[in-house]
Amino acid sequence: MLKNIFEPKSVAIVGASRDPAKIGHAILRNFVDGGFEGEIYPINPNVDEILGLRAYKSISELKGMVDLVVIAVPAPIVPKIVEEAGKADVKGAIIITGGFSEVGNKELEDQVKKLLKKYGITTIGVNCLGVFDPSSRVDTLFLPYYKLERPRAGGIGFITQSGAIGSAVLDWAATQGFGVSKFISYGNATDIDETDLLEYLEKDKKTKVIVMYLEGVKRGKEFMAIAKKVTKKKPIIVIKAGKSARGAKAVQSHTGSLAGSAEVYSAVFKQCNIVEAETIEELFDFARAFDSIPLPKGKKVQIITNGGGMGVLCTDSLIENNLELADISKETKNILKEKFPPHVVVANPMDLIGDADVSRYEMALNTTIKDPNVDAIIAIILYQTVGIQSGVVDIVLRAADSSNKPIVVVSSGGAYTETHMRMLEMSGIPSYPSVSRATKTIAKMYDYSMKNATDE
Amino acid sequence: MLKNIFEPKSVAIVGASRDPAKIGHAILRNFVDGGFEGEIYPINPNVDEILGLRAYKSISELKGMVDLVVIAVPAPIVPKIVEEAGKADVKGAIIITGGFSEVGNKELEDQVKKLLKKYGITTIGVNCLGVFDPSSRVDTLFLPYYKLERPRAGGIGFITQSGAIGSAVLDWAATQGFGVSKFISYGNATDIDETDLLEYLEKDKKTKVIVMYLEGVKRGKEFMAIAKKVTKKKPIIVIKAGKSARGAKAVQSHTGSLAGSAEVYSAVFKQCNIVEAETIEELFDFARAFDSIPLPKGKKVQIITNGGGMGVLCTDSLIENNLELADISKETKNILKEKFPPHVVVANPMDLIGDADVSRYEMALNTTIKDPNVDAIIAIILYQTVGIQSGVVDIVLRAADSSNKPIVVVSSGGAYTETHMRMLEMSGIPSYPSVSRATKTIAKMYDYSMKNATDE
Repeated sequence: MLKNIFEPKSVAIVGASRDPAKIGHAILRNFVDGGFEGEIYPINPNVDEILGLRAYKSISELKGMVDLVVIAVPAPIVPKIVEEAGKADVKGAIIITGGFSEVGNKELEDQVKKLLKKYGITTIGVNCLGVFDPSSRVDTLFLPYYKLERPRAGGIGFITQSGAIGSAVLDWAATQGFGVSKFISYGNATDIDETDLLEYLEKDKKTKVIVMYLEGVKRGKEFMAIAKKVTKKKPIIVIKAGKSARGAKAVQSHTGSLAGSAEVYSAVFKQCNIVEAETIEELFDFARAFDSIPLPKGKKVQIITNGGGMGVLCTDSLIENNLELADISKETKNILKEKFPPHVVVANPMDLIGDADVSRYEMALNTTIKDPNVDAIIAIILYQTVGIQSGVVDIVLRAADSSNKPIVVVSSGGAYTETHMRMLEMSGIPSYPSVSRATKTIAKMYDYSMKNATDE
Repeated sequence: MLKNIFEPKSVAIVGASRDPAKIGHAILRNFVDGGFEGEIYPINPNVDEILGLRAYKSISELKGMVDLVVIAVPAPIVPKIVEEAGKADVKGAIIITGGFSEVGNKELEDQVKKLLKKYGITTIGVNCLGVFDPSSRVDTLFLPYYKLERPRAGGIGFITQSGAIGSAVLDWAATQGFGVSKFISYGNATDIDETDLLEYLEKDKKTKVIVMYLEGVKRGKEFMAIAKKVTKKKPIIVIKAGKSARGAKAVQSHTGSLAGSAEVYSAVFKQCNIVEAETIEELFDFARAFDSIPLPKGKKVQIITNGGGMGVLCTDSLIENNLELADISKETKNILKEKFPPHVVVANPMDLIGDADVSRYEMALNTTIKDPNVDAIIAIILYQTVGIQSGVVDIVLRAADSSNKPIVVVSSGGAYTETHMRMLEMSGIPSYPSVSRATKTIAKMYDYSMKNATDE
């Protein structure tokens, strides 16, 4: 049961240490300092106390008391620890330890696998970073906060085969203001694999969109069946590594997965209505929009801008991504023409001109979002001009709240701009540094929603 | 002569004001506070002194004393000021003022144009942000520093038809650590147009690469002839707005330029060996590499990484961009295998593994860069792991200095990572947040250099 891993009432950390340089110390500290509310049991035969907690010599002392055991001891000792955990009725494990099949030590991994089966221990790992859950505060990432920031709670469930990519992306996501429901680095998938995780996240209420970094899939048929079912309820976004022949070769020396051809994978993804991302940036460009804004009901997009050139680039990009420029009604046009000074271009793109102030955005957003000819809005906000102040953030939030149509924002600039982009992002409005990233996202959302609609 | 604009010994600011809310005040302050070393003459008939400088009633009082006049007064007064400037022997002007042909006031602009011709005044504008030159400290950008940061001095000459895009991108470039030689927003091109600027930047020693945001080209044939000549000496990177039919329509209501079809423009760019960017991000991804690192002599790229997954993604992206994985020699392999622990993957991608420290990067970089089978290196550095510290920055810089092969870095992460990316960027090593942006850049550099080689 994965519940023991993500929502344990008690956790034992085997390999907990007083030495801050040790992985077991870092993990224990995460639970102690991170706000985990259940019982925490450090396991270390050589000391009585760590970080103010009583330490236990062995998990055998805690029979029936532990939901989750985190194992961070050298590989040769792992079978013994698993055996002890099994006998103590532990039903969930995260095994951080590496040094198994990924370095040719398949025999040792098989031994662990057998024991996990014997005792019915649901396990993430071996050879992984494990789990970060911002709600339950399970956090086995053994990297210091200054090197790896933790993101806020949100709706993105992130499953990754690669720990390094996972941590790099999680760190980046944190500073960008993206919200994560669960982060799972599952390593060698000795027990739980990507298909199990997909199935679990389908039912996880906190997860609104599932994001995956995949090198290969262990159980192809099951994966497809589950994915098809999941995407009816929530989107899955995948980046597939090893699509080129040389890339596939690199995958083999990385995790030993069989990568399969690009065409096969892309076809499978399409069939399952899985959204495919070409880059890590796209992965999260798509994910944060799926997480926080409604799906567009059509493909007619209204562009609002205070920089004419950006409006032009956005138009080009919309067309390239098979979206359409919305044609606002005469009524809407008349309302706006009456309220705006004559040099404002009431069209699509709607150019509010460089002297636009916050109230001009308010008018433009509130009026166009109600127009039945508009399915989505891309608001380009350039903060360099004198008229644009922080108030524009609230204007956008209120317009988004007033409707079930998606609004995304595009801004480009330095520290002042980035501060405001973060404000929007933290409040659930996806904010992109370029028009192409915004349009591509709207296009993917539209495609996903159309595919689901026609399948029904 | 554009020298009067970019390197004036004296500047008069017409419309200089004591009121901090006025554009003329902001521009005067740029010259006073920004370190401009020539004479500064505020022109304002109503006051005696502004910002500690003596103010003059009219430019007529300064006959023969002014190289450059910056004009920021209402449109109807502009002809009078130009006339006065002409009579006072001023030979350079930047006219910030808008309200001419872009709002249908073609007659007034024609009047200004005639006067500029009559007096032989070389002019940037009307209706523009003007110029920022980090060396001469000519800075007519009337936006406060907190809203629009100024970039460091560097080799990127940036010509933009759109002021809004220009300022947004300049602001962004500043915080990213990119170096700019000149920023020119030329507005309506009443006198100087994009082709003149291209010709000027060809000879400008500080400019190593020319970047353009274009909506249309005024003199097509001349532009092509000049561009062909320029690209033999330095690269030109262009983003063309208005490539779709709807985008072209938007261009017309923006600057009134005729946009022309995407195919025609792309074909022209190819013929001139102009590098075309699809997004603003690409524009600067390419520019900063052309600015600061050598061109690759071939297309064989060595990937070095401490995250296997990133190596795989990078391989896929290399192949997609028609580059090749370098095959390092047996000799190089033997040297590295002897020095590295056995779990390091000495291949391509070279996976230094998550426990890599700085010295492992040092070994890998210094050895592979000397290998004759390697034309370029993409070093993926993930800072989340314990072994990677700030010292890796110096290692990369030293490796780059030791050779005339290009090195680019890819990193992904939060504040700690970004700090180190800036360090590299400021030192002339392009640092990208994703592998695809790095590989695309190398590919564009290779294509540019091949095209120039085969044309000779």
